Amino acid sequence: MSRIAYVNGRYVPHAEASVHIEDRGYQFADGVYEVCEVMGGRLIDEPRHLARLWRSLDELRIRHPMSEAALKVVLRETVRRNRVREGIVYLQVTRGVARRDHYFPAATVAPAVVVTSRSFDRAKNDVGAEAGVKVITVPENRWPRVDIKSVGLLPNVLVKQQAKEAGAKEAWYVDADGHVTEGGSTNAWIVSADGVLITRPAESGILRGITRSTVADMARDLQIRVEERPFTVAEAKAAKEAFMTAATAIVTPIVAIDGAPVGDGRPGKVALELRRRYHEFAHRGEA
Amino acid sequence: MSRIAYVNGRYVPHAEASVHIEDRGYQFADGVYEVCEVMGGRLIDEPRHLARLWRSLDELRIRHPMSEAALKVVLRETVRRNRVREGIVYLQVTRGVARRDHYFPAATVAPAVVVTSRSFDRAKNDVGAEAGVKVITVPENRWPRVDIKSVGLLPNVLVKQQAKEAGAKEAWYVDADGHVTEGGSTNAWIVSADGVLITRPAESGILRGITRSTVADMARDLQIRVEERPFTVAEAKAAKEAFMTAATAIVTPIVAIDGAPVGDGRPGKVALELRRRYHEFAHRGEA
Repeated sequence: MSRIAYVNGRYVPHAEASVHIEDRGYQFADGVYEVCEVMGGRLIDEPRHLARLWRSLDELRIRHPMSEAALKVVLRETVRRNRVREGIVYLQVTRGVARRDHYFPAATVAPAVVVTSRSFDRAKNDVGAEAGVKVITVPENRWPRVDIKSVGLLPNVLVKQQAKEAGAKEAWYVDADGHVTEGGSTNAWIVSADGVLITRPAESGILRGITRSTVADMARDLQIRVEERPFTVAEAKAAKEAFMTAATAIVTPIVAIDGAPVGDGRPGKVALELRRRYHEFAHRGEA
Repeated sequence: MSRIAYVNGRYVPHAEASVHIEDRGYQFADGVYEVCEVMGGRLIDEPRHLARLWRSLDELRIRHPMSEAALKVVLRETVRRNRVREGIVYLQVTRGVARRDHYFPAATVAPAVVVTSRSFDRAKNDVGAEAGVKVITVPENRWPRVDIKSVGLLPNVLVKQQAKEAGAKEAWYVDADGHVTEGGSTNAWIVSADGVLITRPAESGILRGITRSTVADMARDLQIRVEERPFTVAEAKAAKEAFMTAATAIVTPIVAIDGAPVGDGRPGKVALELRRRYHEFAHRGEA
């Protein structure tokens, strides 16, 4: 079956799905996005993803392209037309098409909207994630507004590629104070010797991850203590466990940092437990 | 006459010129660009623009999409098909189209190339520039690799818009030490009381502006001293003159910084002289 994409009001074959060369997303990275997991045909954590989308748009003063109700229909229809049961839906909104000029275009310029969806093999993903992944650390070098989920991802592309070439899956950014901020496309967590989950507060330096928020809620629900505070690389290396969260990674154990094993070098029990319970909890939150 | 754009090997009507939604320029700002002035149908400072393009691509490890000779043909043909005598040519190269994933795609993925050209009214531009422009100052908040001319321009978009809303044309970035780095899309210069041109060294914190380099060469040719060193906002406000350089701005006098007049509040003599002589000098350099 050939894939279908939603592009500015039309459902088109993915292979032919295109945007104008002067779409500001292409010339200025002047746009935002969300990636939402699809499980059993349902969108996981959708309310939180949409709330963050509106916030990103508002921070950039990009007009909302449509109502939340209409957008939900488009997301569902794109998932449906691609017959995705297990996979993701990707949504991008840019400031629209206008003659190239840094300044915002006229208010009459409509934002551009692209939605795609694709399936993945959940069983295979689970096997991969449950085996654990390695991370490297890199100096934080992004602009401070990483709280906006913009498509300006070139710095992230470069560190993710650096990680891959070092035999790792993810790169953890480390700020000038020696604290881990977040990964190139995931949030960073550790589990202390006494079983406390530690993750950086979302007030500055990181994106307010949706999976991060849901995991924090779930942990509290399971009577696991969560401490939102910065942690250092040394602390992470000495931790009992480490893991990362994101819509696609869900909860993925980290078994090595810069080549040094975390804990006993095997995927942590707490991380695996949180991963296993994630969807049940996320569904409940949306019921 | 309708405009023509070059897109991945074809000359197409501008209105229909499009790229795939999974072009990495659109999803990751994973690409670079150049803007070259066209005067009398000739490309100004072309060798320097092309040298910088190759450097940007090399820094990002994006394959060169074609030879320099071939690219020159495309640039000229795009200018010709748009009948541009006075204007600009815009060139963008991205890492190409691939299923969305931060990591670099397979080496077989071809880089994407877009070239556009448009005319402007030189006389009108000159009148505007010679009247001088205002700038505001804003905290530097971009990533350190601004030496790469990437399309990740969202921070620049935001400060340029901020400048516009403050009644100014440009925003000057100021680093943590209080030094001006550069403008949102221009390089920053001042002229000291004793007539020395001062501009920040291109070694860090700024893009190595092509017009900047040519102006520096020209000034030396005219026996005007050029000092490449950082300067503060206070120094700029107390300077005899201030101006900005870029391919489209050429040399544009700055008459106010954060609402305070520069010098006597009128366009500086040195800046206007450099602007007047710019093209003659740039042509000579390429002869």
